[in-house]
Amino acid sequence: MLESKEQEMIEIRRHLHENPELSFEETETAKFIKNFYEGKDCTVTTDIGGQHGILVDIEGGLPGDTLAIRADFDALPIHEEADVPFRSKVDGVMHACGHDAHTAYMLVLAECLITVKDRLKGTVRIIHQPAEEVPPGGAITMVKEGCLEGVSHVFGIHVISTMPTGIIAYHAGSVHTGRATFKIKIQGKGGHGAVPHEAKDSILAGAEFVTSIQKIVSRKINPMDTVTVTIGSFDGRGTANIIKDSVVLEGDIRMLKEESREVVEQEFRRILEGVCLANDMTYELDYQNDYKVCVNDEATTMSIVTALTEANLQEVSSIVDCGAQSPSEDFAYYAAKRPSCFFFVGAHEPGTEAYGHHHPKFRIDEKSLLISSKAMAVSVLNYMEKGV
Amino acid sequence: MLESKEQEMIEIRRHLHENPELSFEETETAKFIKNFYEGKDCTVTTDIGGQHGILVDIEGGLPGDTLAIRADFDALPIHEEADVPFRSKVDGVMHACGHDAHTAYMLVLAECLITVKDRLKGTVRIIHQPAEEVPPGGAITMVKEGCLEGVSHVFGIHVISTMPTGIIAYHAGSVHTGRATFKIKIQGKGGHGAVPHEAKDSILAGAEFVTSIQKIVSRKINPMDTVTVTIGSFDGRGTANIIKDSVVLEGDIRMLKEESREVVEQEFRRILEGVCLANDMTYELDYQNDYKVCVNDEATTMSIVTALTEANLQEVSSIVDCGAQSPSEDFAYYAAKRPSCFFFVGAHEPGTEAYGHHHPKFRIDEKSLLISSKAMAVSVLNYMEKGV
Amino acid sequence: MLESKEQEMIEIRRHLHENPELSFEETETAKFIKNFYEGKDCTVTTDIGGQHGILVDIEGGLPGDTLAIRADFDALPIHEEADVPFRSKVDGVMHACGHDAHTAYMLVLAECLITVKDRLKGTVRIIHQPAEEVPPGGAITMVKEGCLEGVSHVFGIHVISTMPTGIIAYHAGSVHTGRATFKIKIQGKGGHGAVPHEAKDSILAGAEFVTSIQKIVSRKINPMDTVTVTIGSFDGRGTANIIKDSVVLEGDIRMLKEESREVVEQEFRRILEGVCLANDMTYELDYQNDYKVCVNDEATTMSIVTALTEANLQEVSSIVDCGAQSPSEDFAYYAAKRPSCFFFVGAHEPGTEAYGHHHPKFRIDEKSLLISSKAMAVSVLNYMEKGV
Amino acid sequence: MLESKEQEMIEIRRHLHENPELSFEETETAKFIKNFYEGKDCTVTTDIGGQHGILVDIEGGLPGDTLAIRADFDALPIHEEADVPFRSKVDGVMHACGHDAHTAYMLVLAECLITVKDRLKGTVRIIHQPAEEVPPGGAITMVKEGCLEGVSHVFGIHVISTMPTGIIAYHAGSVHTGRATFKIKIQGKGGHGAVPHEAKDSILAGAEFVTSIQKIVSRKINPMDTVTVTIGSFDGRGTANIIKDSVVLEGDIRMLKEESREVVEQEFRRILEGVCLANDMTYELDYQNDYKVCVNDEATTMSIVTALTEANLQEVSSIVDCGAQSPSEDFAYYAAKRPSCFFFVGAHEPGTEAYGHHHPKFRIDEKSLLISSKAMAVSVLNYMEKGV
Repeated sequence: MLESKEQEMIEIRRHLHENPELSFEETETAKFIKNFYEGKDCTVTTDIGGQHGILVDIEGGLPGDTLAIRADFDALPIHEEADVPFRSKVDGVMHACGHDAHTAYMLVLAECLITVKDRLKGTVRIIHQPAEEVPPGGAITMVKEGCLEGVSHVFGIHVISTMPTGIIAYHAGSVHTGRATFKIKIQGKGGHGAVPHEAKDSILAGAEFVTSIQKIVSRKINPMDTVTVTIGSFDGRGTANIIKDSVVLEGDIRMLKEESREVVEQEFRRILEGVCLANDMTYELDYQNDYKVCVNDEATTMSIVTALTEANLQEVSSIVDCGAQSPSEDFAYYAAKRPSCFFFVGAHEPGTEAYGHHHPKFRIDEKSLLISSKAMAVSVLNYMEKGV
Repeated sequence: MLESKEQEMIEIRRHLHENPELSFEETETAKFIKNFYEGKDCTVTTDIGGQHGILVDIEGGLPGDTLAIRADFDALPIHEEADVPFRSKVDGVMHACGHDAHTAYMLVLAECLITVKDRLKGTVRIIHQPAEEVPPGGAITMVKEGCLEGVSHVFGIHVISTMPTGIIAYHAGSVHTGRATFKIKIQGKGGHGAVPHEAKDSILAGAEFVTSIQKIVSRKINPMDTVTVTIGSFDGRGTANIIKDSVVLEGDIRMLKEESREVVEQEFRRILEGVCLANDMTYELDYQNDYKVCVNDEATTMSIVTALTEANLQEVSSIVDCGAQSPSEDFAYYAAKRPSCFFFVGAHEPGTEAYGHHHPKFRIDEKSLLISSKAMAVSVLNYMEKGV
Repeated sequence: MLESKEQEMIEIRRHLHENPELSFEETETAKFIKNFYEGKDCTVTTDIGGQHGILVDIEGGLPGDTLAIRADFDALPIHEEADVPFRSKVDGVMHACGHDAHTAYMLVLAECLITVKDRLKGTVRIIHQPAEEVPPGGAITMVKEGCLEGVSHVFGIHVISTMPTGIIAYHAGSVHTGRATFKIKIQGKGGHGAVPHEAKDSILAGAEFVTSIQKIVSRKINPMDTVTVTIGSFDGRGTANIIKDSVVLEGDIRMLKEESREVVEQEFRRILEGVCLANDMTYELDYQNDYKVCVNDEATTMSIVTALTEANLQEVSSIVDCGAQSPSEDFAYYAAKRPSCFFFVGAHEPGTEAYGHHHPKFRIDEKSLLISSKAMAVSVLNYMEKGV
Repeated sequence: MLESKEQEMIEIRRHLHENPELSFEETETAKFIKNFYEGKDCTVTTDIGGQHGILVDIEGGLPGDTLAIRADFDALPIHEEADVPFRSKVDGVMHACGHDAHTAYMLVLAECLITVKDRLKGTVRIIHQPAEEVPPGGAITMVKEGCLEGVSHVFGIHVISTMPTGIIAYHAGSVHTGRATFKIKIQGKGGHGAVPHEAKDSILAGAEFVTSIQKIVSRKINPMDTVTVTIGSFDGRGTANIIKDSVVLEGDIRMLKEESREVVEQEFRRILEGVCLANDMTYELDYQNDYKVCVNDEATTMSIVTALTEANLQEVSSIVDCGAQSPSEDFAYYAAKRPSCFFFVGAHEPGTEAYGHHHPKFRIDEKSLLISSKAMAVSVLNYMEKGV
């Protein structure tokens, strides 16, 4: 059934690709999704989670648990450079992460599930989520507004532009890093370079902070765990012979265990406090814990792996454990509330150049749409039959 | 004679103050100076040293050495905020260092010297120098173009807006710092904060350089000597979660002995090389030795001090050794070629707020004009009688 | 059969415990082992691998592969403080790691295997290995001298004094860290603290090195991998007012992937070179890569886990994946040559105080002897029946 | 008169040289000095200032101020390697700083002054001071016990083994540095290198402190002033793979202005506090301000220079301003209480190898004895005639 609708998926995907909308601004995309369900036998709730979220409940004819499956639909502030006929029509906005594909396969899958709803055990709730790309992300609000009420488990798929088409990848446990971001202003006192004792050199204090925080990862975190601390911006622009009065540092922290989050923040604050004390300076710190660590439930994940293995889909060449991945994903907020599994579908056409996600030339092999829909269908039907 | 011309000095100074011109652009000021000498019994050479320099030779009636005395005449890119009736008429340009005063007293002094030239032993060469404020400064070119040919000694005065009127200050030996400036680009490799091992973090390398160069002053320079090394600008602006590919640092180095200059540069280059090696990075360095250390000749300086002490001018309350001063001055280029003395005349009216040089509210007590002219007259006449 | 010999194991273990010998000096222990096999139906080869190694081949009556199983037998330079009746009789030497238990269970297991040898498929080669505790360890020489010739797989057990008796733990993949050690002499130039510019401050250079190498772990290693770099000794003892001419640093590096080893060494050498260049110093470096990462073969490990699970031994309460362990073990040298599995048997009697390995009060629950022998027997017999 | 007694000075000096005594243990030396004055017409007070100090008052026949002149007499814990016939008879103790010479010339000078005492205007008080070499030094106690009561000015001489005989050197103002010393224990927490997150690495904290305090000199002190901060000892000896629980740092601070002392101590404490905070550690600090900056009074110094210049002694080839000297001297305690002058007499025989003070091969040209006595005699007599 899905095979016959492959072209439909592709068309929807290309339509969305040509009409991308930035996070929190997905008015037309939400309208498109809503219209898609017009007249179909399901319950649609709109305007959730930062305005544009949509929930679609497909109630099966037989009793059973409620399973949520999620597809996101926002685009990125990137100017498309990919040479495709359905290039973005919006300057500076692009579906450079594959959310167009997620939505396309999900709509068609939904259509099919509705067709066979009488035979379904339990309810499938489709979460059409906006604003995945911009912290705090759309998921957190969707959850707050009750999208998981009555839901037992959550599944999600991400297409991967650098993994060959045909591969499905998974990892049980921590699968995406959690994240914190920070912005610091270190306030010293300006002055002339010839009389340094009358000033307080904020560039020097900032430099000491940058070198000193290396020890968070090297000495404060269990070496078996994963944490990164990056200063991505050091703004100490000034005049050669004038001691700079203040500097602004910005950065990003990743971790694969929520337990690490607390340790990092505590050490980070301690070091900042100590360095500023040693330099006789003050500081302002804006430290934001944003995306959670995304943790795939072991049993849920293995049940999907088993189902996919047994399904032996002809389009799928292998199913591999890809280990933890360094990006962050706001699917983490669902996974923190319900046993969940977020897994990956290869979308790189062998023989072509691969471009990473968020690259201006990002592109996907559209065969991944059918594979995604089949993989999710197998996972959903298996869940309804056997649970996790 | 000078006393009767005090008002003339003030008027000239106010005229110049209202019509400031930036370094290397002093067209009208040079024309004004040239016009002043029109019809006077002296030899005027124009368009020297970066175009606007002027030499005026007053040949005495009696045999003797040639003494050069220097006054500079450029202004600064500062918007005047001083509340004076003769405020700058040029937006964003201001005589905020007192060069208007230097030129004013010097013109009137020249006029008087010309009047009595028959009785002078030797020749007085007045150096009207442009472009003191901007490296490499006007002096270096004046010297190259021969302004010191035949000259035995050079004298110069600077008014000081923060030293009370009535004080004359001097220092034998190094009186103003020499300077070097630098601009460094440290080139690492950009990347995502979640995969630091695929990048080379240039902000970290820059930070290590900033902390590491502190040891030039603390460990490499004779603690009896004076050196400063300042990083005035650290441009590492970027994105929080992206490892920065390169940073640009700019700074300024001062020293009170030319011997220190070589040590500092050698250690600076060594540390940059070492830090970049340790961080697996490359760099581009633009290192400029600009102003020399300004060294007052001991005998020349003491001869002026003795002459001023004996002259016992009623306007002068004390003559003090002020020690070395931290700014740099391109008078240094004259002092490097001839035994010279550059000394200071107080220009702060007691009871008023004092503003430092280069401050938008900078102002001088105009009594300093007469004092400058008298102090220089005493110095010149003493030199002609007794030498140094 | 093993159950009936539990007391024998305990007696052997206590005899060894009372008579510990340091690594490379295990003369009496080797003699004891050799005597044990006297008159038994097996092939014994002595004096291998740093003199005291012993190989015992038990050739089965049926055809099959050769499986090596390893027990080590050296003790530590620790003065025993444990309150046991069979305390070490040798001052300053102690079996504080459980190698006495390894040898005891292995001898009794060997005895039993010899009894049933006719029914065994293939050959069991017992590796009695000396000198595990002191780099480069006895294993590397055993391997060089051919102990793995004809061997298909290798199994090994370590008792764990801090894991409750009844638990068996395993980890497929990297199970013990690999290691490197280093000793650095940084050579500056001594001098008096009052004239630092005449000296080269080696303490400062050493300090810069210590702070700078933190970035190996924080920036140069994949954050998903595990590496530690520790400076355990900084010998810069000197006189308060004298600049120290040289410092000696010693330390230790661990990693869980052999791929990391090369990166760490390269970055380590680069940073040392760079820091010494920046400080105008020379250095001597002794950098030793010693123990390899110990990697358990996935299939081999899982075959043992399956066998143990199915055996359902009454003394075993659970079989758990313990993840990678931070110590290093020279079993790694066998595992590098043959598919192997090194696993862990709990030896902490619940309700008693647990002391870590190498602690002067280290002790084990002697029930772990029987469990070890049974677990190894199950593993061996399973291997002979089913392979891995 | 002094000339005829040159041989006597030399003999006394050699006697003292052969019989050196360590600071605070100068029993025999004190007895020797006391015996010297036996039967001479002066007032001798013994057992002052750390037991062995001696005051000798020579009251002139004419009215006038009291002038104190000081000679120290302790030796150093150095084993003499100089090849002289009067080598130290005490193993490991040596007059390696010239205090034997100071005492020798002073005794003979005293003898002469006593001879002519009727003609002296005022009183000469000779301070024979013990324990100059070991903080807090003998001077501080001598002053506390009243040695300056009634005294108007103090003079002192030091022979210099590296300055050619015939030169007398002086400096008005700060002539010797002041000093502070410190000992720090930074307390972290020990642990195994493989689990750094369970420990607190004190070597890393110590290293950060060492790099961070460089900024005291580079940024916190007026670049025109002189300060050194040296960590002379970093005791972090330990075991390669064990994280060190604590380190002990010792060092020395010098300054040429008492005003700098407070700034340095404040910044030093601030940085230590900040670094320990950033590293989550505690510390113990023993910070001792010991020798003061030795400041020669301008007028006093110049009066001596003038007197020596006018005296035109045939043994004196030149009188030079040597600038500030980096060592510390406890003459500073006299100079802090009374206008004083401490000056230098060359004692290096041209054409011979020169060894610095405190060197095992230290030696002086004995001609410096006569020169010292003459220079001090000129200074004393001039003072009595003309004051300062």
